[in-house]
Amino acid sequence: MTTFTPTGRSKLRRLPTRGYTDRETIYKILDEGLLCHIGFAVDGQPYVIPTSYARAEDTLYVHGSAASRMLKELQKGVPACVTVTLLDGLVLARSVFHHSMNYRSVVAFGRAALITDADKKIEALRAITEHIISGRWADARTPNEKELNQTSVLEFSIEEASAKIRTGPPLDDEEDYALPVWAGVVPLELNALAPIRDPRLSDGMAPPTYAAEYQRPNSNRSGRKD
Amino acid sequence: MTTFTPTGRSKLRRLPTRGYTDRETIYKILDEGLLCHIGFAVDGQPYVIPTSYARAEDTLYVHGSAASRMLKELQKGVPACVTVTLLDGLVLARSVFHHSMNYRSVVAFGRAALITDADKKIEALRAITEHIISGRWADARTPNEKELNQTSVLEFSIEEASAKIRTGPPLDDEEDYALPVWAGVVPLELNALAPIRDPRLSDGMAPPTYAAEYQRPNSNRSGRKD
Repeated sequence: MTTFTPTGRSKLRRLPTRGYTDRETIYKILDEGLLCHIGFAVDGQPYVIPTSYARAEDTLYVHGSAASRMLKELQKGVPACVTVTLLDGLVLARSVFHHSMNYRSVVAFGRAALITDADKKIEALRAITEHIISGRWADARTPNEKELNQTSVLEFSIEEASAKIRTGPPLDDEEDYALPVWAGVVPLELNALAPIRDPRLSDGMAPPTYAAEYQRPNSNRSGRKD
Repeated sequence: MTTFTPTGRSKLRRLPTRGYTDRETIYKILDEGLLCHIGFAVDGQPYVIPTSYARAEDTLYVHGSAASRMLKELQKGVPACVTVTLLDGLVLARSVFHHSMNYRSVVAFGRAALITDADKKIEALRAITEHIISGRWADARTPNEKELNQTSVLEFSIEEASAKIRTGPPLDDEEDYALPVWAGVVPLELNALAPIRDPRLSDGMAPPTYAAEYQRPNSNRSGRKD
Protein backbone atom coordinates (compact mmCIF):
# COMPACT_ATOMS: atom_id res chain seq x y z
CA MET A 1 0.00 0.00 0.00
CA THR A 2 1.32 3.39 -0.95
CA THR A 3 2.18 6.12 1.51
CA PHE A 4 1.99 9.89 1.60
CA THR A 5 5.42 11.50 1.72
CA PRO A 6 5.71 13.66 4.81
CA THR A 7 7.34 17.08 4.52
CA GLY A 8 7.88 19.47 7.42
CA ARG A 9 4.14 20.01 7.70
CA SER A 10 3.11 16.52 8.63
CA LYS A 11 6.24 14.81 9.89
CA LEU A 12 5.68 13.83 13.47
CA ARG A 13 8.44 15.15 15.63
CA ARG A 14 7.56 13.49 18.89
CA LEU A 15 6.42 9.98 19.68
CA PRO A 16 7.09 8.94 16.07
CA THR A 17 5.97 5.40 16.78
CA ARG A 18 2.42 6.72 16.93
CA GLY A 19 2.61 8.07 13.38
CA TYR A 20 1.54 6.54 10.08
CA THR A 21 1.63 7.82 6.53
CA ASP A 22 0.32 4.76 4.68
CA ARG A 23 -2.91 5.19 2.77
CA GLU A 24 -4.50 2.07 4.24
CA THR A 25 -4.32 3.46 7.79
CA ILE A 26 -5.29 6.97 6.74
CA TYR A 27 -8.22 5.89 4.55
CA LYS A 28 -9.65 3.69 7.30
CA ILE A 29 -9.81 6.58 9.76
CA LEU A 30 -11.21 8.98 7.17
CA ASP A 31 -13.85 6.43 6.19
CA GLU A 32 -14.98 5.87 9.77
CA GLY A 33 -15.24 9.53 10.77
CA LEU A 34 -18.50 11.42 10.42
CA LEU A 35 -17.19 14.94 10.86
CA CYS A 36 -13.97 16.63 9.87
CA HIS A 37 -12.65 19.95 11.12
CA ILE A 38 -11.46 22.19 8.29
CA GLY A 39 -8.88 24.86 8.98
CA PHE A 40 -8.19 27.86 6.78
CA ALA A 41 -6.94 31.36 7.42
CA VAL A 42 -8.40 34.68 6.30
CA ASP A 43 -6.13 37.69 6.74
CA GLY A 44 -4.06 35.71 9.22
CA GLN A 45 -7.05 34.67 11.34
CA PRO A 46 -7.48 30.87 11.42
CA TYR A 47 -10.94 29.35 11.32
CA VAL A 48 -11.78 25.77 12.29
CA ILE A 49 -15.19 24.62 11.09
CA PRO A 50 -16.81 21.19 11.55
CA THR A 51 -18.51 19.66 8.57
CA SER A 52 -19.46 16.34 7.01
CA TYR A 53 -17.44 14.89 4.18
CA ALA A 54 -16.68 11.83 2.10
CA ARG A 55 -13.47 10.40 0.70
CA ALA A 56 -12.75 9.04 -2.78
CA GLU A 57 -9.11 8.06 -3.28
CA ASP A 58 -7.05 11.07 -2.18
CA THR A 59 -9.96 13.48 -2.45
CA LEU A 60 -12.31 14.68 0.26
CA TYR A 61 -15.68 16.11 -0.73
CA VAL A 62 -17.36 18.76 1.36
CA HIS A 63 -20.56 20.61 0.66
CA GLY A 64 -22.81 23.33 1.91
CA SER A 65 -24.80 26.38 0.97
CA ALA A 66 -23.45 28.26 -2.01
CA ALA A 67 -23.56 31.27 0.35
CA SER A 68 -21.26 29.62 2.90
CA ARG A 69 -18.33 31.82 3.88
CA MET A 70 -16.14 28.79 4.44
CA LEU A 71 -16.84 27.28 1.05
CA LYS A 72 -16.36 30.62 -0.71
CA GLU A 73 -12.99 30.98 0.97
CA LEU A 74 -11.85 27.41 0.39
CA GLN A 75 -12.77 27.39 -3.29
CA LYS A 76 -10.19 30.13 -3.83
CA GLY A 77 -7.66 27.34 -3.44
CA VAL A 78 -6.09 28.64 -0.24
CA PRO A 79 -3.94 26.25 1.84
CA ALA A 80 -6.21 24.22 4.07
CA CYS A 81 -6.00 21.50 6.68
CA VAL A 82 -8.61 18.82 7.27
CA THR A 83 -8.50 16.85 10.51
CA VAL A 84 -10.58 13.83 11.50
CA THR A 85 -10.39 12.55 15.07
CA LEU A 86 -11.91 9.38 16.51
CA LEU A 87 -11.86 9.16 20.28
CA ASP A 88 -11.54 5.62 21.62
CA GLY A 89 -10.90 5.92 25.33
CA LEU A 90 -9.52 7.66 28.37
CA VAL A 91 -6.19 6.30 29.56
CA LEU A 92 -5.87 6.46 33.33
CA ALA A 93 -2.28 6.05 34.44
CA ARG A 94 -0.99 5.92 37.99
CA SER A 95 0.63 9.32 37.51
CA VAL A 96 -1.20 12.37 36.18
CA PHE A 97 1.72 12.89 33.83
CA HIS A 98 1.08 9.65 31.93
CA HIS A 99 -2.65 10.13 31.53
CA SER A 100 -3.62 10.09 27.87
CA MET A 101 -6.38 9.29 25.44
CA ASN A 102 -6.72 6.46 22.99
CA TYR A 103 -7.59 7.95 19.64
CA ARG A 104 -7.08 7.73 15.91
CA SER A 105 -6.63 10.96 13.97
CA VAL A 106 -5.69 12.11 10.49
CA VAL A 107 -4.31 15.52 9.62
CA ALA A 108 -4.45 16.19 5.87
CA PHE A 109 -3.02 19.17 4.03
CA GLY A 110 -4.18 20.33 0.62
CA ARG A 111 -6.34 22.73 -1.29
CA ALA A 112 -9.95 22.69 -2.40
CA ALA A 113 -11.65 23.51 -5.68
CA LEU A 114 -15.29 24.03 -6.60
CA ILE A 115 -16.86 21.18 -8.54
CA THR A 116 -18.58 22.69 -11.56
CA ASP A 117 -19.35 19.59 -13.61
CA ALA A 118 -22.98 18.62 -12.90
CA ASP A 119 -22.48 14.85 -12.99
CA LYS A 120 -19.40 15.05 -10.80
CA LYS A 121 -21.27 17.27 -8.36
CA ILE A 122 -24.13 14.80 -8.01
CA GLU A 123 -21.65 11.95 -7.62
CA ALA A 124 -19.91 13.86 -4.81
CA LEU A 125 -23.22 14.54 -3.07
CA ARG A 126 -24.05 10.86 -3.38
CA ALA A 127 -20.67 10.00 -1.86
CA ILE A 128 -21.25 12.34 1.10
CA THR A 129 -24.74 10.95 1.75
CA GLU A 130 -23.55 7.36 1.47
CA HIS A 131 -20.51 8.06 3.65
CA ILE A 132 -22.78 9.28 6.43
CA ILE A 133 -25.43 6.59 6.09
CA SER A 134 -24.97 3.94 3.47
CA GLY A 135 -28.15 3.07 1.61
CA ARG A 136 -29.83 6.44 2.04
CA TRP A 137 -29.22 7.87 -1.43
CA ALA A 138 -31.44 5.27 -3.09
CA ASP A 139 -34.35 6.09 -0.78
CA ALA A 140 -34.37 9.86 -0.53
CA ARG A 141 -35.50 12.30 -3.19
CA THR A 142 -32.38 13.32 -5.10
CA PRO A 143 -31.52 17.01 -5.61
CA ASN A 144 -33.34 19.00 -8.26
CA GLU A 145 -31.75 21.74 -10.33
CA LYS A 146 -32.74 24.52 -7.95
CA GLU A 147 -31.26 22.65 -4.99
CA LEU A 148 -28.08 21.91 -6.91
CA ASN A 149 -27.71 25.61 -7.68
CA GLN A 150 -28.04 26.44 -4.00
CA THR A 151 -25.39 23.89 -3.07
CA SER A 152 -21.63 24.17 -3.46
CA VAL A 153 -19.56 21.02 -3.50
CA LEU A 154 -15.80 21.21 -3.15
CA GLU A 155 -13.11 18.63 -3.76
CA PHE A 156 -10.19 18.87 -1.37
CA SER A 157 -7.10 17.21 -2.80
CA ILE A 158 -4.95 15.62 -0.11
CA GLU A 159 -1.38 16.57 -0.91
CA GLU A 160 -0.01 15.19 2.30
CA ALA A 161 -1.46 13.40 5.30
CA SER A 162 -0.47 11.58 8.42
CA ALA A 163 -2.30 9.54 11.02
CA LYS A 164 -1.69 9.33 14.73
CA ILE A 165 -2.95 6.40 16.75
CA ARG A 166 -2.73 5.59 20.41
CA THR A 167 -4.05 2.30 21.70
CA GLY A 168 -3.69 0.09 24.73
CA PRO A 169 -3.14 0.48 28.45
CA PRO A 170 -1.36 3.31 30.25
CA LEU A 171 2.42 3.31 30.30
CA ASP A 172 3.63 4.36 33.74
CA ASP A 173 7.08 4.99 35.07
CA GLU A 174 8.45 1.73 36.42
CA GLU A 175 8.53 2.92 40.02
CA ASP A 176 4.86 3.98 39.88
CA TYR A 177 3.48 0.50 39.16
CA ALA A 178 3.63 -0.25 42.89
CA LEU A 179 1.31 2.66 43.75
CA PRO A 180 -2.15 1.71 45.03
CA VAL A 181 -3.87 3.59 42.21
CA TRP A 182 -6.35 1.98 39.84
CA ALA A 183 -5.11 2.18 36.27
CA GLY A 184 -6.60 1.22 32.96
CA VAL A 185 -8.75 2.49 30.11
CA VAL A 186 -12.30 3.82 30.00
CA PRO A 187 -13.34 2.87 26.45
CA LEU A 188 -15.49 5.37 24.59
CA GLU A 189 -17.57 4.74 21.53
CA LEU A 190 -20.05 6.62 19.42
CA ASN A 191 -23.29 4.65 19.50
CA ALA A 192 -26.48 5.02 17.53
CA LEU A 193 -29.73 4.76 19.45
CA ALA A 194 -33.06 3.61 18.08
CA PRO A 195 -34.23 5.97 15.31
CA ILE A 196 -36.74 8.67 16.24
CA ARG A 197 -39.49 9.01 13.66
CA ASP A 198 -40.37 12.40 12.25
CA PRO A 199 -43.67 13.42 13.90
CA ARG A 200 -45.10 14.04 10.44
CA LEU A 201 -44.26 10.55 9.16
CA SER A 202 -47.17 8.39 7.99
CA ASP A 203 -48.25 5.75 10.50
CA GLY A 204 -46.91 2.28 9.99
CA MET A 205 -43.74 3.24 8.15
CA ALA A 206 -40.83 1.39 9.75
CA PRO A 207 -37.29 2.76 9.71
CA PRO A 208 -35.01 1.23 7.08
CA THR A 209 -32.38 -1.25 8.27
CA TYR A 210 -29.54 1.19 7.62
CA ALA A 211 -31.12 3.51 10.21
CA ALA A 212 -32.38 0.91 12.67
CA GLU A 213 -29.03 -0.91 12.74
CA TYR A 214 -26.80 2.06 12.11
CA GLN A 215 -23.10 1.67 12.71
CA ARG A 216 -19.86 3.11 11.35
CA PRO A 217 -17.79 1.05 8.93
CA ASN A 218 -14.30 -0.18 9.79
CA SER A 219 -14.78 0.30 13.49
CA ASN A 220 -11.49 -0.73 15.06
CA ARG A 221 -11.60 0.52 18.57
CA SER A 222 -8.58 0.07 20.68
CA GLY A 223 -10.38 0.08 23.98
CA ARG A 224 -13.24 -2.23 23.04
CA LYS A 225 -13.96 -4.72 25.75
CA ASP A 226 -15.35 -7.61 23.73
CA MET B 1 -26.10 35.86 31.50
CA THR B 2 -23.54 37.83 29.57
CA THR B 3 -22.78 37.32 25.92
CA PHE B 4 -19.75 37.50 23.67
CA THR B 5 -19.99 40.32 21.15
CA PRO B 6 -19.72 38.93 17.65
CA THR B 7 -17.55 40.73 15.12
CA GLY B 8 -17.13 39.71 11.51
CA ARG B 9 -15.23 36.60 12.60
CA SER B 10 -17.98 34.89 14.48
CA LYS B 11 -21.21 36.45 13.29
CA LEU B 12 -23.29 33.75 11.67
CA ARG B 13 -24.31 34.78 8.22
CA ARG B 14 -26.66 31.98 7.38
CA LEU B 15 -29.35 30.27 9.43
CA PRO B 16 -28.87 32.82 12.21
CA THR B 17 -31.54 31.18 14.34
CA ARG B 18 -29.06 28.36 15.01
CA GLY B 19 -26.52 30.75 16.51
CA TYR B 20 -25.86 31.72 20.11
CA THR B 21 -23.35 34.04 21.74
CA ASP B 22 -24.42 33.78 25.38
CA ARG B 23 -21.87 32.38 27.80
CA GLU B 24 -24.33 29.92 29.35
CA THR B 25 -24.82 28.09 26.04
CA ILE B 26 -21.15 28.32 25.07
CA TYR B 27 -19.83 27.17 28.45
CA LYS B 28 -22.16 24.18 28.52
CA ILE B 29 -20.85 22.89 25.19
CA LEU B 30 -17.22 23.56 26.12
CA ASP B 31 -17.71 21.78 29.44
CA GLU B 32 -19.22 18.68 27.84
CA GLY B 33 -16.61 18.26 25.08
CA LEU B 34 -13.56 16.07 25.60
CA LEU B 35 -11.52 17.22 22.63
CA CYS B 36 -11.12 20.54 20.93
CA HIS B 37 -9.58 21.20 17.52
CA ILE B 38 -7.10 24.06 17.59
CA GLY B 39 -6.36 25.98 14.42
CA PHE B 40 -3.32 28.16 13.83
CA ALA B 41 -1.33 29.14 10.77
CA VAL B 42 2.41 28.99 10.18
CA ASP B 43 3.64 30.87 7.10
CA GLY B 44 0.11 30.82 5.73
CA GLN B 45 -0.35 27.06 6.20
CA PRO B 46 -3.23 26.27 8.58
CA TYR B 47 -2.91 23.41 11.05
CA VAL B 48 -5.82 21.79 12.89
CA ILE B 49 -4.76 19.67 15.85
CA PRO B 50 -7.01 17.75 18.27
CA THR B 51 -6.22 18.03 21.95
CA SER B 52 -7.78 17.84 25.39
CA TYR B 53 -8.59 21.00 27.31
CA ALA B 54 -10.45 22.52 30.22
CA ARG B 55 -12.36 25.76 30.64
CA ALA B 56 -12.25 28.27 33.50
CA GLU B 57 -14.37 31.36 32.88
CA ASP B 58 -13.33 32.66 29.43
CA THR B 59 -10.04 30.76 29.44
CA LEU B 60 -9.26 27.39 27.89
CA TYR B 61 -6.25 25.46 29.17
CA VAL B 62 -4.32 23.13 26.87
CA HIS B 63 -1.19 21.21 27.63
CA GLY B 64 1.40 18.95 26.11
CA SER B 65 5.08 18.26 25.79
CA ALA B 66 7.29 21.31 26.11
CA ALA B 67 8.72 20.12 22.77
CA SER B 68 5.32 20.25 21.02
CA ARG B 69 5.41 22.23 17.80
CA MET B 70 1.82 23.32 18.29
CA LEU B 71 2.38 24.64 21.81
CA LYS B 72 5.58 26.42 20.78
CA GLU B 73 3.72 28.14 17.98
CA LEU B 74 0.63 29.01 20.02
CA GLN B 75 2.59 30.48 22.91
CA LYS B 76 3.90 33.14 20.54
CA GLY B 77 0.44 34.61 20.85
CA VAL B 78 -0.58 34.08 17.23
CA PRO B 79 -4.28 34.32 16.32
CA ALA B 80 -5.89 30.96 16.98
CA CYS B 81 -9.28 29.29 16.75
CA VAL B 82 -10.54 26.58 19.07
CA THR B 83 -13.55 24.54 18.00
CA VAL B 84 -15.50 21.98 20.03
CA THR B 85 -18.13 19.87 18.29
CA LEU B 86 -20.63 17.48 19.85
CA LEU B 87 -22.44 15.23 17.41
CA ASP B 88 -25.98 14.32 18.47
CA GLY B 89 -27.60 12.66 15.51
CA LEU B 90 -28.12 12.12 11.81
CA VAL B 91 -31.12 13.92 10.38
CA LEU B 92 -32.75 11.95 7.59
CA ALA B 93 -35.09 14.11 5.55
CA ARG B 94 -37.26 12.99 2.67
CA SER B 95 -35.04 14.92 0.27
CA VAL B 96 -31.27 14.57 0.15
CA PHE B 97 -31.09 18.37 0.16
CA HIS B 98 -32.58 18.65 3.65
CA HIS B 99 -30.42 15.96 5.25
CA SER B 100 -28.49 17.35 8.16
CA MET B 101 -26.91 16.53 11.48
CA ASN B 102 -27.96 17.44 14.98
CA TYR B 103 -24.95 18.90 16.72
CA ARG B 104 -23.74 21.50 19.17
CA SER B 105 -20.52 23.35 18.36
CA VAL B 106 -18.52 26.30 19.64
CA VAL B 107 -16.02 28.27 17.60
CA ALA B 108 -13.81 30.45 19.79
CA PHE B 109 -11.25 33.00 18.66
CA GLY B 110 -8.37 34.24 20.77
CA ARG B 111 -4.71 33.90 21.58
CA ALA B 112 -2.72 31.67 23.90
CA ALA B 113 0.06 32.38 26.37
CA LEU B 114 2.42 30.09 28.26
CA ILE B 115 1.64 29.70 31.94
CA THR B 116 4.88 30.29 33.82
CA ASP B 117 3.62 30.57 37.40
CA ALA B 118 4.08 27.16 39.05
CA ASP B 119 0.90 27.20 41.13
CA LYS B 120 -1.19 28.38 38.22
CA LYS B 121 0.34 25.68 36.04
CA ILE B 122 -0.57 22.94 38.50
CA GLU B 123 -4.07 24.37 38.87
CA ALA B 124 -4.48 24.29 35.08
CA LEU B 125 -3.28 20.68 34.92
CA ARG B 126 -5.72 19.82 37.69
CA ALA B 127 -8.50 21.52 35.72
CA ILE B 128 -7.67 19.53 32.56
CA THR B 129 -7.57 16.22 34.45
CA GLU B 130 -10.82 16.96 36.25
CA HIS B 131 -12.48 18.17 33.05
CA ILE B 132 -11.74 14.82 31.43
CA ILE B 133 -12.61 12.64 34.40
CA SER B 134 -13.80 14.30 37.56
CA GLY B 135 -12.32 12.77 40.70
CA ARG B 136 -9.12 11.53 39.12
CA TRP B 137 -6.74 14.24 40.36
CA ALA B 138 -7.16 13.19 43.99
CA ASP B 139 -6.27 9.57 43.19
CA ALA B 140 -3.35 9.80 40.78
CA ARG B 141 0.22 10.75 41.62
CA THR B 142 0.51 14.48 40.96
CA PRO B 143 3.30 15.86 38.73
CA ASN B 144 6.80 16.20 40.13
CA GLU B 145 9.20 18.96 39.21
CA LYS B 146 10.81 17.06 36.35
CA GLU B 147 7.42 16.26 34.84
CA LEU B 148 6.29 19.87 35.22
CA ASN B 149 9.41 21.01 33.39
CA GLN B 150 8.64 18.63 30.53
CA THR B 151 5.08 19.94 30.27
CA SER B 152 3.88 23.18 28.75
CA VAL B 153 0.50 24.52 29.76
CA LEU B 154 -1.11 27.33 27.80
CA GLU B 155 -4.04 29.56 28.59
CA PHE B 156 -6.13 30.49 25.58
CA SER B 157 -8.15 33.62 26.21
CA ILE B 158 -11.47 33.57 24.42
CA GLU B 159 -11.90 36.99 22.85
CA GLU B 160 -14.96 36.02 20.91
CA ALA B 161 -17.06 32.88 20.57
CA SER B 162 -20.28 31.63 19.10
CA ALA B 163 -22.23 28.41 19.34
CA LYS B 164 -24.24 26.66 16.69
CA ILE B 165 -26.91 24.16 17.60
CA ARG B 166 -29.24 22.06 15.51
CA THR B 167 -31.85 19.89 17.17
CA GLY B 168 -35.05 18.15 16.27
CA PRO B 169 -36.58 16.39 13.30
CA PRO B 170 -35.87 17.04 9.63
CA LEU B 171 -37.51 20.02 7.96
CA ASP B 172 -38.65 19.04 4.50
CA ASP B 173 -40.19 21.06 1.73
CA GLU B 174 -43.95 21.01 2.17
CA GLU B 175 -44.60 19.05 -1.04
CA ASP B 176 -42.14 16.33 0.01
CA TYR B 177 -44.00 15.29 3.15
CA ALA B 178 -46.27 13.12 1.01
CA LEU B 179 -43.33 11.06 -0.31
CA PRO B 180 -43.16 7.42 0.87
CA VAL B 181 -39.72 7.95 2.41
CA TRP B 182 -38.91 7.21 6.06
CA ALA B 183 -37.75 10.37 7.83
CA GLY B 184 -36.46 11.04 11.28
CA VAL B 185 -33.31 11.15 13.38
CA VAL B 186 -30.70 8.52 14.18
CA PRO B 187 -29.48 9.72 17.61
CA LEU B 188 -25.77 9.38 18.31
CA GLU B 189 -24.07 9.47 21.64
CA LEU B 190 -20.59 8.96 23.02
CA ASN B 191 -20.81 6.13 25.52
CA ALA B 192 -18.32 4.81 28.02
CA LEU B 193 -17.97 1.04 28.25
CA ALA B 194 -16.88 -0.90 31.32
CA PRO B 195 -13.31 0.06 32.29
CA ILE B 196 -10.49 -2.22 31.13
CA ARG B 197 -7.95 -2.82 33.85
CA ASP B 198 -4.26 -2.33 33.19
CA PRO B 199 -2.76 -5.84 32.86
CA ARG B 200 -0.18 -4.84 35.45
CA LEU B 201 -2.76 -3.78 38.04
CA SER B 202 -2.74 -5.63 41.38
CA ASP B 203 -5.46 -8.24 41.70
CA GLY B 204 -8.57 -7.24 43.54
CA MET B 205 -8.36 -3.52 42.86
CA ALA B 206 -11.76 -2.34 41.63
CA PRO B 207 -12.17 0.63 39.32
CA PRO B 208 -13.22 3.85 41.03
CA THR B 209 -16.82 4.97 40.57
CA TYR B 210 -15.81 7.88 38.33
CA ALA B 211 -14.40 5.32 35.87
CA ALA B 212 -17.00 2.58 36.30
CA GLU B 213 -19.89 5.02 35.90
CA TYR B 214 -18.21 7.48 33.60
CA GLN B 215 -20.36 10.03 31.84
CA ARG B 216 -20.01 13.54 30.51
CA PRO B 217 -21.52 16.44 32.48
CA ASN B 218 -24.32 18.57 31.12
CA SER B 219 -25.34 16.06 28.54
CA ASN B 220 -28.23 17.61 26.69
CA ARG B 221 -28.70 15.54 23.62
CA SER B 222 -31.28 16.62 21.15
CA GLY B 223 -31.94 13.21 19.74
CA ARG B 224 -32.10 11.26 22.97
CA LYS B 225 -34.89 8.76 22.94
CA ASP B 226 -35.64 8.45 26.63
